[in-house]
Amino acid sequence: MTTTSVGVEFVPSFVQDAWWTPEAGVTGTEVRDASTGDVLAQVSTDGLDLAEMVEYGRSVGQTELGKLTFHQRALKLKELAQFLNSHREALYELSHRSGATKIDNMIDIDGGIGVLFTFGSKGRRELPNSQVVIDGPAEVLAKDGSFIGEHIYTRIPGVAVQINAFNFPVWGMLEKFAPAFIAGVPTIVKPATPTGYVTAAAVKLIIESNILPAGSLQLISGSARDMLDHLDYRDAVSFTGSATTANLLKSHPNVAQGGIRFTAEADSLNAAILGPDAVPGTPEFDAFIKSLVTEMTAKAGQKCTSIRRTIVPTERVQDVVDAVRARIEERVVVGDPRAEGVTMGALASLEQLADVRAAVQEMLDAGGELAYGTLDSPKVTLQDGTVGSVDDGAFMSPVLLKFADAEAEAVHSREAFGPVSSVIGYKDLDDAIRLAAMGSGSLVATVATNDPETARKLVTGIAAHHGRVLVLNREDARTSTGHGSPVPHLVHGGPGRAGGGEELGGIRSVLHHMQRTAVQGSPNMLTAITGVWHTGADRNFDEVHPFRKNLAELKIGDALRSDLRQVTLEDITAFANETGDTFYAHTNQEAAEANPFFPGIVAHGYLLLSWGAGLFVEPAPGPVLANYGLENLRFVTPVAAGDSIRVTLTAKRITPRETDEYGEVAWDAVLTNQNDEIVATYDVLTLVEK
Amino acid sequence: MTTTSVGVEFVPSFVQDAWWTPEAGVTGTEVRDASTGDVLAQVSTDGLDLAEMVEYGRSVGQTELGKLTFHQRALKLKELAQFLNSHREALYELSHRSGATKIDNMIDIDGGIGVLFTFGSKGRRELPNSQVVIDGPAEVLAKDGSFIGEHIYTRIPGVAVQINAFNFPVWGMLEKFAPAFIAGVPTIVKPATPTGYVTAAAVKLIIESNILPAGSLQLISGSARDMLDHLDYRDAVSFTGSATTANLLKSHPNVAQGGIRFTAEADSLNAAILGPDAVPGTPEFDAFIKSLVTEMTAKAGQKCTSIRRTIVPTERVQDVVDAVRARIEERVVVGDPRAEGVTMGALASLEQLADVRAAVQEMLDAGGELAYGTLDSPKVTLQDGTVGSVDDGAFMSPVLLKFADAEAEAVHSREAFGPVSSVIGYKDLDDAIRLAAMGSGSLVATVATNDPETARKLVTGIAAHHGRVLVLNREDARTSTGHGSPVPHLVHGGPGRAGGGEELGGIRSVLHHMQRTAVQGSPNMLTAITGVWHTGADRNFDEVHPFRKNLAELKIGDALRSDLRQVTLEDITAFANETGDTFYAHTNQEAAEANPFFPGIVAHGYLLLSWGAGLFVEPAPGPVLANYGLENLRFVTPVAAGDSIRVTLTAKRITPRETDEYGEVAWDAVLTNQNDEIVATYDVLTLVEK
Repeated sequence: MTTTSVGVEFVPSFVQDAWWTPEAGVTGTEVRDASTGDVLAQVSTDGLDLAEMVEYGRSVGQTELGKLTFHQRALKLKELAQFLNSHREALYELSHRSGATKIDNMIDIDGGIGVLFTFGSKGRRELPNSQVVIDGPAEVLAKDGSFIGEHIYTRIPGVAVQINAFNFPVWGMLEKFAPAFIAGVPTIVKPATPTGYVTAAAVKLIIESNILPAGSLQLISGSARDMLDHLDYRDAVSFTGSATTANLLKSHPNVAQGGIRFTAEADSLNAAILGPDAVPGTPEFDAFIKSLVTEMTAKAGQKCTSIRRTIVPTERVQDVVDAVRARIEERVVVGDPRAEGVTMGALASLEQLADVRAAVQEMLDAGGELAYGTLDSPKVTLQDGTVGSVDDGAFMSPVLLKFADAEAEAVHSREAFGPVSSVIGYKDLDDAIRLAAMGSGSLVATVATNDPETARKLVTGIAAHHGRVLVLNREDARTSTGHGSPVPHLVHGGPGRAGGGEELGGIRSVLHHMQRTAVQGSPNMLTAITGVWHTGADRNFDEVHPFRKNLAELKIGDALRSDLRQVTLEDITAFANETGDTFYAHTNQEAAEANPFFPGIVAHGYLLLSWGAGLFVEPAPGPVLANYGLENLRFVTPVAAGDSIRVTLTAKRITPRETDEYGEVAWDAVLTNQNDEIVATYDVLTLVEK
Repeated sequence: MTTTSVGVEFVPSFVQDAWWTPEAGVTGTEVRDASTGDVLAQVSTDGLDLAEMVEYGRSVGQTELGKLTFHQRALKLKELAQFLNSHREALYELSHRSGATKIDNMIDIDGGIGVLFTFGSKGRRELPNSQVVIDGPAEVLAKDGSFIGEHIYTRIPGVAVQINAFNFPVWGMLEKFAPAFIAGVPTIVKPATPTGYVTAAAVKLIIESNILPAGSLQLISGSARDMLDHLDYRDAVSFTGSATTANLLKSHPNVAQGGIRFTAEADSLNAAILGPDAVPGTPEFDAFIKSLVTEMTAKAGQKCTSIRRTIVPTERVQDVVDAVRARIEERVVVGDPRAEGVTMGALASLEQLADVRAAVQEMLDAGGELAYGTLDSPKVTLQDGTVGSVDDGAFMSPVLLKFADAEAEAVHSREAFGPVSSVIGYKDLDDAIRLAAMGSGSLVATVATNDPETARKLVTGIAAHHGRVLVLNREDARTSTGHGSPVPHLVHGGPGRAGGGEELGGIRSVLHHMQRTAVQGSPNMLTAITGVWHTGADRNFDEVHPFRKNLAELKIGDALRSDLRQVTLEDITAFANETGDTFYAHTNQEAAEANPFFPGIVAHGYLLLSWGAGLFVEPAPGPVLANYGLENLRFVTPVAAGDSIRVTLTAKRITPRETDEYGEVAWDAVLTNQNDEIVATYDVLTLVEK
């Protein structure tokens, strides 16, 4: 649909921190209002230097983002979320033109802002306030502890190119931008042409907010052309769109062989399985029908996650068809999203409409039956509230297909990317699992059941074929975030046909923009590299008690070694009586001796912990405000009456907060006995003033 | 080199749990002794039905492995390691024929058995004794806690095809087989032709041991032909070999588009960087030279991890050349590995020798200088101990090249897969980082320095281009496992040219054979699916105290709720005096009130923990043997004098051991106050009898 559109404005690109539009004389691709067919704008990247964009990200973007820690970047996302939240009305208005209803806008715009909030929070709660992430515990590789290994994540040294689908112009950008930004990797976003003007408007707001460092976000409005030619193993590409396009990109030499980190999230034949127990009249049946109709009609079914395959006990097929019909007739109003009462808008474009109709026709030809809906142009609610037809509006009725042959290939491989789903019947749970797997990999499946064993069997049976599985029952029907909605906390993506990629999933998606590297060396060297004290590294036994140092004064490795304190049988008995912990190992010599792990009566582990605190604490008010927790406690050697213990406490990890006058300090604590044997090890978590 | 070899035996394949050789009349590829050129055997897969092998793995292999838990599989690996350990002499003997010295055999054979031991141990220590792995904490997705999300791993439903390199016929198989086996995924291993007879001998031992379930291991001796045509997104392929072959395989449609989980570990231009502080005379300089000569000569330099680029301060280039020469002349004896005193054997084949010589010649033509060694055929120690030349022996002298131009392309892109390394000079640390990155992604780099800031700068600067970085200094020079040796605890693989894959890394490599799936549902449903109790799920307040139940009787969710116990100021004071923990928040009302987190004097966290134990403990001897630790303790609400606390204890995770009469039980512990506010949450770790 490339036509000359003299006089229609170009949607601008944002390139090397400046707005860019093609030179005069360039002919772009037209973009139209989904409900009216009016030409809104045009796009083109003719004349845009993509190689320079990449180079700008790798140089300026990497340098500027490299000046910030994870917490500082996360805080900027929170500020950006607040800014966009107070400017979102303009985006709503614009987004209606793409066929999106009010609820669709909430999913896309509010949902996108929500992702920023979540990452703004998780980035500060779950990452260190530095630039290196430690992955897993250190592994001791030499008996004397002088050689250890560990995994670290550092950011990839390139750009994150994000190629997005037309259905979520705002969420689609923000859900990929947020994790790349926290990782410290500059983004180049390329939205889909039909709705890229909404993305461009969002980018305009982001730039106006002046929150982001230079080079951290660039926008391509129009074709990304030969972008992949300019990328290599330093860069990441996250693609969302059709499986066909995903496969095309995956075959590019720089992806297939050049080592570009490529993830794809493609629409797939997602399933919803109705459990045998979820008969009509149960809350699970109702929740299932409600979810199915929502997935068929939200975004007019143009969601990668929509339910395409409705897999129900054979004897329930007609019940499901009847219930879907009833709910659609009661709830669904198709029309211009700007009109009052409309609950399902237009498809994104006339091309999209033609594609969906063709797919449905193909499925009918392959044995499908129209159980609900029609392929004819529906009468719809127009912008002025009247009902009528629009020649250039991309409207379509919801369509439910029914297949007598549950294994018909069209059900499991042909996707109509619109308000369309197919119902098939299963014989037993194994059959349901087998049918679900016939989709060859999906983004998400719903299992509706209130029987725990059915849930266990179905979920573990289908999990390896799905990126996400939702269990719907009476307990979560009201509070569930829904089959079709990825949440930023959980991974989005799926194996096989769904593209084989992963996005979101909390900090997992930040790590996708980083390289995991095994680092081996002495404890001192690993301490220097990670900024976290490692067992075996030097300690600084300063004269000043480490609890007397504030965050500015305290250094990793600052330590304290207490005197020995002897534990007597009287101490153990008194502790048992006062706490009520009269477990036989602390009170009955004979029974304690019979225990395979104790030499006889031993001190309570909690006595040792409590005494440990008594040995390391500095009583007077000072920068240490509170002990808020404890991690990784292991009791190693029992302590009998007559033994003595001492504690060695070492500043292990220091995490100043960006927005408070204090931060977290984790202390490595080791209790040893009079023979220097390790009695217990743990981490003490404290809050310390700046 | 396909020639008719009438009378030479075929190396057998192991197919569908039976040994297989080609029918009479088939012509195979010859395999020769590396030192003498004698024909040892031939290989061919003509007539082998690869599709049936895959189907056998997916059906029989998956079914039989599916009957075992992670711990049961891990225990089998330990048994297998013990078996191979007592039969390894036969493998040593055979392996000498491939040119491997005694030390090379230790790396390959003992190293491979070591991997089995490590996974046998880690699989039981770090995984649950079930079939589902939980990844990360549950995410609360509804305010009332009725809807939560979590990630689980379940095994992929296909086969793991392992295509290995010629240099490590035993380790190469076992390091990939072990994690696949623990995951529950059947292996089809395809060793490289020149040394596949050693692999086949190891498989013969494995099968004789009778330890593995049916279908869990199959062997292809000879070409894997069209194997990739039979695989899809359910299967994993792990390739080790040249970057060229890796790229060829990555372009196969079933990899590029079909969703096969493909990882490659390709030889790369690994670097070793000498820090500016590591001048001659320092332990770091000596360790650097020693490591470099080891990497040039072990396996005759035929290791993916060998040091190809030696990056040293410009003013140190000649020092390094001189020191390498001295060490080689002092230590390296080239010859038949069966002869006494030989420290460097032959290359694997005459073809390999020709390739390496051609690569060195190319590097000389590109500006390299021969700083040590020769391309002429060296005089070597023969099997009988005499010195002489062998026409059909694949022998070569170690070669050190020197490049005046540190940026010469040949240094950073041309690999001679033999006893060859290049020395180049750097100006400063930034220059060294830039030069290291010119390898476009490597498996491993060494940094030799004793300066923590130099280590930090170099390691964080190059980490994103490397899978592993080793820091060599005086502290670990003696205990380091070495630049070239991947250890099972740490990932092996690297970005870009190194293939972009990851192997090993402890349990990480088990998870590579599993699909991560986000699961959403109510706490009861997530409990049913994972077998681990989730906050918000039902508890069973049985009349029997849960500490009175053994592992067979105890069920997830079995719980205890104690009475309230009031905390008085006297209790707090007494605890302070007895433990010595006189922190002001427990002793000084005025100072405590000034603390931002406390209402005034509060009870010690350790008092609350100790009382908690007193409230839940069952004093008499019973199945609970010991409390060996504690995890995830967080103090949520302070407890002041006059407040009361109670504890709710719930069986959360039950892990029976395979080889002991007890197992681990983790208990969810929640302390609440008289207003049902949460005071503290933690997990109590206990050992409980079966």
